Amino acid sequence: MIRNFQELVENGDERAREICLKVATAGIERVLPEKIIKRHVRIEGNRLIVRTSSYDLRNFRRIFVVGGGKASSTMASVLYEILGDKIERGVIVDTTVREIPKVECVRGTHPIPGEGGMEGAKKIIELLKEADEDDLVICLISGGGSALLPLPVPPITLEEKKKVTDLLLRCGATINEINAVRKHISLIKGGQLARAAYPATVITLLISDVIGDPLDVIASGPTAPDASTFEDAVNVLKKYEIWNEVPNSVRERLEKGLRGEIPETPKEGDEVFRKVNNVILSNNLEALIGAAEKAKELGMNVLVLSSMIEGESREVGIAHAGILREVVKSGIPLKRPAVIISGGETTVTVKGSGKGGRAMEFVLGAIEKMRGVDNIAVLCMGTDGIDGPTDAAGAIADGKSYERAEKMGLSIEEYLKENNSYEFFRKLNDLIFTGPTGTNVSDIRVMVAL
Amino acid sequence: MIRNFQELVENGDERAREICLKVATAGIERVLPEKIIKRHVRIEGNRLIVRTSSYDLRNFRRIFVVGGGKASSTMASVLYEILGDKIERGVIVDTTVREIPKVECVRGTHPIPGEGGMEGAKKIIELLKEADEDDLVICLISGGGSALLPLPVPPITLEEKKKVTDLLLRCGATINEINAVRKHISLIKGGQLARAAYPATVITLLISDVIGDPLDVIASGPTAPDASTFEDAVNVLKKYEIWNEVPNSVRERLEKGLRGEIPETPKEGDEVFRKVNNVILSNNLEALIGAAEKAKELGMNVLVLSSMIEGESREVGIAHAGILREVVKSGIPLKRPAVIISGGETTVTVKGSGKGGRAMEFVLGAIEKMRGVDNIAVLCMGTDGIDGPTDAAGAIADGKSYERAEKMGLSIEEYLKENNSYEFFRKLNDLIFTGPTGTNVSDIRVMVAL
Repeated sequence: MIRNFQELVENGDERAREICLKVATAGIERVLPEKIIKRHVRIEGNRLIVRTSSYDLRNFRRIFVVGGGKASSTMASVLYEILGDKIERGVIVDTTVREIPKVECVRGTHPIPGEGGMEGAKKIIELLKEADEDDLVICLISGGGSALLPLPVPPITLEEKKKVTDLLLRCGATINEINAVRKHISLIKGGQLARAAYPATVITLLISDVIGDPLDVIASGPTAPDASTFEDAVNVLKKYEIWNEVPNSVRERLEKGLRGEIPETPKEGDEVFRKVNNVILSNNLEALIGAAEKAKELGMNVLVLSSMIEGESREVGIAHAGILREVVKSGIPLKRPAVIISGGETTVTVKGSGKGGRAMEFVLGAIEKMRGVDNIAVLCMGTDGIDGPTDAAGAIADGKSYERAEKMGLSIEEYLKENNSYEFFRKLNDLIFTGPTGTNVSDIRVMVAL
Repeated sequence: MIRNFQELVENGDERAREICLKVATAGIERVLPEKIIKRHVRIEGNRLIVRTSSYDLRNFRRIFVVGGGKASSTMASVLYEILGDKIERGVIVDTTVREIPKVECVRGTHPIPGEGGMEGAKKIIELLKEADEDDLVICLISGGGSALLPLPVPPITLEEKKKVTDLLLRCGATINEINAVRKHISLIKGGQLARAAYPATVITLLISDVIGDPLDVIASGPTAPDASTFEDAVNVLKKYEIWNEVPNSVRERLEKGLRGEIPETPKEGDEVFRKVNNVILSNNLEALIGAAEKAKELGMNVLVLSSMIEGESREVGIAHAGILREVVKSGIPLKRPAVIISGGETTVTVKGSGKGGRAMEFVLGAIEKMRGVDNIAVLCMGTDGIDGPTDAAGAIADGKSYERAEKMGLSIEEYLKENNSYEFFRKLNDLIFTGPTGTNVSDIRVMVAL
């Protein structure tokens, strides 16, 4: 999976790096959508088994497949292997397309939503109009689904919707606040896809890229109850004093909603969810567990720290290095040879004009604290193989990285200041290249002390 | 030890808070200087035993006691209990003074060095001039010793020395860079105290408040070899372009040093260290282990994470909360009822004009991520009982803190922006008050999930 594996190993403390890379790879392999679908979805006689749920296929006249996300084309393709021509028809939207019998695969864009995705989303809603009480809709959702399935309520245009998101991002609104607004101007998000599918039976298979696997946040919850209201949406825009800046069409829709002239997003207990089953097929923790098993296989003592690590990347990097140093110094919290694994998704507050991603900046933050320590390595990569707006998945470093950088005249401080982690690790030849992995369950971090 | 213990317990999830507070208290109690000295220093017949070292007291004509730091008066007082009138004479500098037979206790100031400390430092050097080949000098060093023992080389004045430190702090120099300069204009720091004591035998007893216990950093290493040079000191001032701004007296001394006209700080292998024994008596990890034992006693599953956690307080708070949430969600890395303990020292980049400390800001950073989770609590406190420029030791929070703050109209975001953690927790009645504990081994953090 890692294209430059050997080069990365030879670039410093070989054994520590090798273990780091192998362990991370095993983690990502565990959550490749192909394996996830095959592990959790199968046919037994007339029954479709999805994790712990079971459906008698004889109850359904037709099966429709819809969905979106950066793993959705692979998910659909493997689902076709399982269900074959039992699938009547389908539409999914992904960044990479492939030929799948019965299922139309539309190319969308991520992270900026585009016309392609909107066309696909429209086709999905059209298809779901056909779905009836005796039909089964299998909805395939994975990370990126929110950007890949944009469908603003007419007359709101995609451009207008993007403008609202931009305004919210710029004024520092939280993701929950942004979603409260977006769900109320969408025909997909906030349970609206479930409404479109009603009264069909819906099984939504989710690969979660969100910490804690909240159904209403993953891909903005197309088949999950929405807790936010039109009032919330309006309050967010007023709180940040951008109510007068958003396009007229948006303001008009929200005002109509406030007056009760259009229906709310479907809430918990709503009839449209009666036959909806949201199933988390995989998540970040599963990748960490896959990584941990590999580490044990390699004879390491292993600690899985958490799949829910958040915070500013570079600072979390410093804190993680502090854990590794204690292992080296005192064998706490576990004795060497040790592997510590964590997941979740850190953030980068961009202040400079460099190039980088949250995974690389995590590693860059850790380097100074690892300085001079032998036989250790730290890695962080996006499980999707794409860290930020770069072509690399992440980066690796060891106790020699600091000195190597110094000799090359690279100031870590400067590269951090410019958020230029990509260039830093490019010069050190420590960028990890995988290409898109086809899955997306946030980040994986591996620390090794031999 | 915690004055408002009962109030803090009743302020939220009672059992989780109670355990949090008890565990942290036990950690600090483990490293009170009184207990540390009694645990590690004793007389057996004619021998003085210091941890694993042993000295025949008949070899020494006189014993002198010197030192500085926020635990030094307690250390000296207990040392007198052990050695009694075997002590010939002594001088120590602390922020709190007490009557100790044979040992003069001088009041100094922290964190800003003052005339009091300088007078004390002068007396120490005077005393050490007396110390001869057949004398023993016991040097008591603890956190704060650097500010409490200022002694610039004449003609440099204390004001001039402070000006240099200010300039360095303002231009963002690292602590290593600042120390390189300070050690080269001091008569105490950077091994100079050892030089003054030479040719006496020196035992330095240290309570470490620095991550990793580096001898040359704790109290600026009065009896430790210095790795930095006059050249380093000059380069630092030139790098930050403040060479022309530092007082003439400082520039002249450093130039003389560059020309080899005055001796360097003593280096590794120097004759002055031949009879010096630096003994770390206690550190942050010991507090964590004390805390862990208490937690086990209370029936908890325990993980000691690291005594070397650094990073921006609020971000480390977010990351720590991510570990706690995983415990609650999946029993990883340990099953409930669980206690996770960490130490070290985080930092606060002050941008606002509020009041607070690194411990409080850690907890403030964690609150949002703990929102709505029952039966958890998070605490952070300075083991010295003084968090930043406040009268509180730290703060505690639980899963209800977010809602409580919201109801009171307090915006966490705003309080973080203003670095106003003290006021936030004051309003929530969640500040921890201990008064000065008499010890100082950085911070302790305790997280509980029942």
